Amino acid sequence: MKKTMPTMKDVAQEAGVALGTVSKVFNGIPVGESYRIKVEAAAKKLGYEVNQYARGLRAGTTSTIALILPHVDHPFFSTLAQYICEALLQRSYRMLLYVTAAQPEAERECLGMVRQNKVDGVIALTYNQLEVVEGLPFVSIDRCLGPDIPCVASDNYTGGRLAAEKLLELGCVHPAFLRVGSPNLSETDKRGDGFESLCRAKQVPYEMLRLDDGAEDILFHEFFRSHMEDGKLSIDGIFCSTDLLACRIRTMLENLGIRVPEDVQIIGFDGIRQFGTGSLYCSTIIQPVRKIAETCVDLLLAKNRSNIPALVCLPVSYASGGTTNG
Amino acid sequence: MKKTMPTMKDVAQEAGVALGTVSKVFNGIPVGESYRIKVEAAAKKLGYEVNQYARGLRAGTTSTIALILPHVDHPFFSTLAQYICEALLQRSYRMLLYVTAAQPEAERECLGMVRQNKVDGVIALTYNQLEVVEGLPFVSIDRCLGPDIPCVASDNYTGGRLAAEKLLELGCVHPAFLRVGSPNLSETDKRGDGFESLCRAKQVPYEMLRLDDGAEDILFHEFFRSHMEDGKLSIDGIFCSTDLLACRIRTMLENLGIRVPEDVQIIGFDGIRQFGTGSLYCSTIIQPVRKIAETCVDLLLAKNRSNIPALVCLPVSYASGGTTNG
Repeated sequence: MKKTMPTMKDVAQEAGVALGTVSKVFNGIPVGESYRIKVEAAAKKLGYEVNQYARGLRAGTTSTIALILPHVDHPFFSTLAQYICEALLQRSYRMLLYVTAAQPEAERECLGMVRQNKVDGVIALTYNQLEVVEGLPFVSIDRCLGPDIPCVASDNYTGGRLAAEKLLELGCVHPAFLRVGSPNLSETDKRGDGFESLCRAKQVPYEMLRLDDGAEDILFHEFFRSHMEDGKLSIDGIFCSTDLLACRIRTMLENLGIRVPEDVQIIGFDGIRQFGTGSLYCSTIIQPVRKIAETCVDLLLAKNRSNIPALVCLPVSYASGGTTNG
Repeated sequence: MKKTMPTMKDVAQEAGVALGTVSKVFNGIPVGESYRIKVEAAAKKLGYEVNQYARGLRAGTTSTIALILPHVDHPFFSTLAQYICEALLQRSYRMLLYVTAAQPEAERECLGMVRQNKVDGVIALTYNQLEVVEGLPFVSIDRCLGPDIPCVASDNYTGGRLAAEKLLELGCVHPAFLRVGSPNLSETDKRGDGFESLCRAKQVPYEMLRLDDGAEDILFHEFFRSHMEDGKLSIDGIFCSTDLLACRIRTMLENLGIRVPEDVQIIGFDGIRQFGTGSLYCSTIIQPVRKIAETCVDLLLAKNRSNIPALVCLPVSYASGGTTNG
């Protein structure tokens, strides 16, 4: 079942009119009514589709958006890509996807490709400072790149406060915040800030351990050992900066003979769901991924760019997932 | 940190030469040596990047490939998208991603968009018969669309045989194959064929249950009940067409009081790994996702298209994941 794409020339031939007449009709330039009818009938008969791409080139638009992500095979990013792609297709936009592994060179290279390729805008989740192309609509996820580039993120600060609040509510008296992540400043750093602010307000003693990506288990083990007395951990609640870290810490603690949630309760961040069952990996602060995706697309395609915000934080929620007592 | 993109005009001004000279240099047309040096120095100084996109338009190429998938938030598809994107970026190609939810209309619409958009080729995992654009390189995953369109898949048939062989090796004497999937013909149907062929060759009595997508649990329950005597299941090994189905069947059986793997062993298909730990959800036949991705890209971009195969099946392997006795 093959089909050759008809050209404007084919339409002109079929309609028995000049090529210029066909071009005028397709571009909305007035021609005699009888010509317009002939051309439209011929186009319909041949299945001619007006080439929006070529038309876009003339208008300087391509209906194409670039999405730059570190990976697309991580559950958070793949869900984000899915929702952004859906939101764009609904608006008849196409999505170019770039993956960078969060490497500065790869991110710069992607932006170079975007500059060379004609796109109408960029949505990017990057880990490094980037030179942004002037005049090109750009929305950043999780990282503020500059005053004119809107950043969309979860309400990480409130999420951190919520996690601390939950741990205290569930009986913890000595909570800790653990984090591994990029050394570059990001909205996600506010998870720890929110946690700290609530513990301070409630005058609860707390611990903070922030490590950079690639940190080995030994550093966490040292931290735990320094908070153990007679084989018992003095920390009774842990807020981890991601679900991935929460899973890692849980395994580490269980290997040390410490029970979760009996001895220590753990809350992660993200809301990653298990394949198949859809259940959570751990108790967690859930990111509103669909809202993040739709907000990015709405901001990127906004006609009126005079009221574009610098930062949009979307509401998070807590859900119990087996690593807490509720 | 913003940067305006320099134009050819800026380069001409900087070099103190005519615009036509700059154009010649960028397009490899000979000019006086001193002019070439001036232009190249100016381009370098201004950070001018030759617009490959505009150049591609003249050459009739765009260095852009469309990838059409049902979803990108399912682990198999997200891994596939990741590897295809990596393989394309390595070759300086960009990837347009379309998601269709496997709906015939959405798939046709995507192909319509691809026709309108200029791309150099299409890689698609579709569920419905499609009209393919003549002359446009096209690689299909898991579904044979026609004699001139190469199809890339796992060696599903061997995978089915391997699953049956494993179940028999692990002591099963009455195995079954269960499947839910699209009613449209697909390479993945060969999983059941391979299973059946091995059971026949070994003269082992076996059961087959093939249901369409959306089949409710009640149909599986009826099947199980019809193979139960005195509360014991006569079936002692199950090969499921996907890991997702294997997880679903496992839960169903455990709710019926049947233990996995003690009473019945289960093997899935795909090789989906758990987030964080990377462990398998079940014993399974692993699809070589990276090889599938790279083969698609290699076939799509092959210069010599006279030797393009109709079907490429890539080797699968078995791995134990807790739902079998080995």
